[in-house]
Amino acid sequence: MNKPVGSKTQTRAWIFENGKMRSRRDYLTTEEPLEIRLVSPRRTLAVTMRTPGADFELAAGFLYTEGVISSRQDIQRLSYCVDPEIDGEQLYNIVNVELQADLELDLQPLERHFYTTSACGICGKASLEALRMRGCALIPPEPKVTPEIIYSLPDKLRAAQGVFNATGGLHAAALFDSQGELLMLREDVGRHNALDKLIGTALLSEELPLGDRIVMVSGRSSFEIVQKCAVAGVPIVCAVSAPSSLAVSVAEEFGITLIGFLRGERFNVYSGLERITNTISI
Amino acid sequence: MNKPVGSKTQTRAWIFENGKMRSRRDYLTTEEPLEIRLVSPRRTLAVTMRTPGADFELAAGFLYTEGVISSRQDIQRLSYCVDPEIDGEQLYNIVNVELQADLELDLQPLERHFYTTSACGICGKASLEALRMRGCALIPPEPKVTPEIIYSLPDKLRAAQGVFNATGGLHAAALFDSQGELLMLREDVGRHNALDKLIGTALLSEELPLGDRIVMVSGRSSFEIVQKCAVAGVPIVCAVSAPSSLAVSVAEEFGITLIGFLRGERFNVYSGLERITNTISI
Repeated sequence: MNKPVGSKTQTRAWIFENGKMRSRRDYLTTEEPLEIRLVSPRRTLAVTMRTPGADFELAAGFLYTEGVISSRQDIQRLSYCVDPEIDGEQLYNIVNVELQADLELDLQPLERHFYTTSACGICGKASLEALRMRGCALIPPEPKVTPEIIYSLPDKLRAAQGVFNATGGLHAAALFDSQGELLMLREDVGRHNALDKLIGTALLSEELPLGDRIVMVSGRSSFEIVQKCAVAGVPIVCAVSAPSSLAVSVAEEFGITLIGFLRGERFNVYSGLERITNTISI
Repeated sequence: MNKPVGSKTQTRAWIFENGKMRSRRDYLTTEEPLEIRLVSPRRTLAVTMRTPGADFELAAGFLYTEGVISSRQDIQRLSYCVDPEIDGEQLYNIVNVELQADLELDLQPLERHFYTTSACGICGKASLEALRMRGCALIPPEPKVTPEIIYSLPDKLRAAQGVFNATGGLHAAALFDSQGELLMLREDVGRHNALDKLIGTALLSEELPLGDRIVMVSGRSSFEIVQKCAVAGVPIVCAVSAPSSLAVSVAEEFGITLIGFLRGERFNVYSGLERITNTISI
């Protein structure tokens, strides 16, 4: 395998098909760790396995959706740690984050897997409660969209997925306006990273909350995906595959329209039906 | 949405198809947090969003593949925390782990996303180095398998996937012998959890290392998936979809045969070609 070049890594694969073998050049999705590092006090906030690209946006989106920062203004500076003494391969795998000096830093949300609210209590309900305590609120009932707009999203997402076409190995998160026009697409080996890159881009260009937007993700929707959308105020979340039970709970709790199995002229709505208009019921 | 009952949760969905809408009862994959809690000293080791079922196996597999324990004997007891005072919904979401009293506990591996080996260094190479330092070794070159055995795996995996058929929302990890016979299948909303359940089951029945076995996962193969297989000594790892660059690096490093895009009479080999026999090269 060659060294990674950005989001793609060249390799050689042996293809077995109908009892025969051939060898060919192939491309893999690059997966490399990214450390999100606080400069002062110096501390590793997170390390995530991600596909290089939009790293500042990923860091910003992660800190925002996990509740460490609440606005663009909380970030003073984002930069790569490019210590001349370190190995070339390690370059651009550390993002230094400088936050506003007067920001009251609460890193507890980063204990992200600790959805505990009592001495011996952990459950989906407690996870929702933790989100409410972080200030997540009910999303207003707008916008309304037609089924035709929803039907049109997968083709637009797929058409815009550059690296996926080469490697077949990338998740995507796409942002659409309420007319179904594609505004932005971000890709990553991890679904949550693709979404953090998308929300981070919106944060850095001060477009949050995304109150009149639609987000679509490839694959399934889990607690983590819908939770991040809830924090960013996204009213309509679509996925190519199935939601989990907790994804539906978060959507119900915060008034999100959650759509699954969106393929061709077909989709399922699991919550927030009122945003879908012009429907003939049978 | 109803309350979860085990791995499935009943809900109502609205189906939009060709401009018409109907409502129907539907099933979701249950997603609930699981806390893995050390009893003494009392400490939360991890909280993972998982599908209930095989929770002890998940806890055991997680502790093993993440390097906290190295054998079945390190575990004294696994039990649910069923404090009578806690909410009924929170029951069975905490697994208490009692380890051997004389076990020298090194929880550093649980800082699992910190693949740092130097003051300012993080990269895929450092991640591999961290695995070597945990004692991961080169896997012996056996067994050899024919392409026909590999072709046969996806149908067997799919046939055994019970909950997936109802919800469309579960990842699977399956264990096969070197003749392609299905030995075990575990499902979860998270791919890494399905694999931890599988490896944990093998650990608890003292069947590790899995030196003559084949593991197949639904979806893609990432660093995390191949890393867990490397720890369990699995020589052949197959996935329905693409590997990442770092998945291939781990496989090359530890001598694993890594197979991707395994569908129908077709698959790609990314490393460890020598375990595939009887091949006509064209």
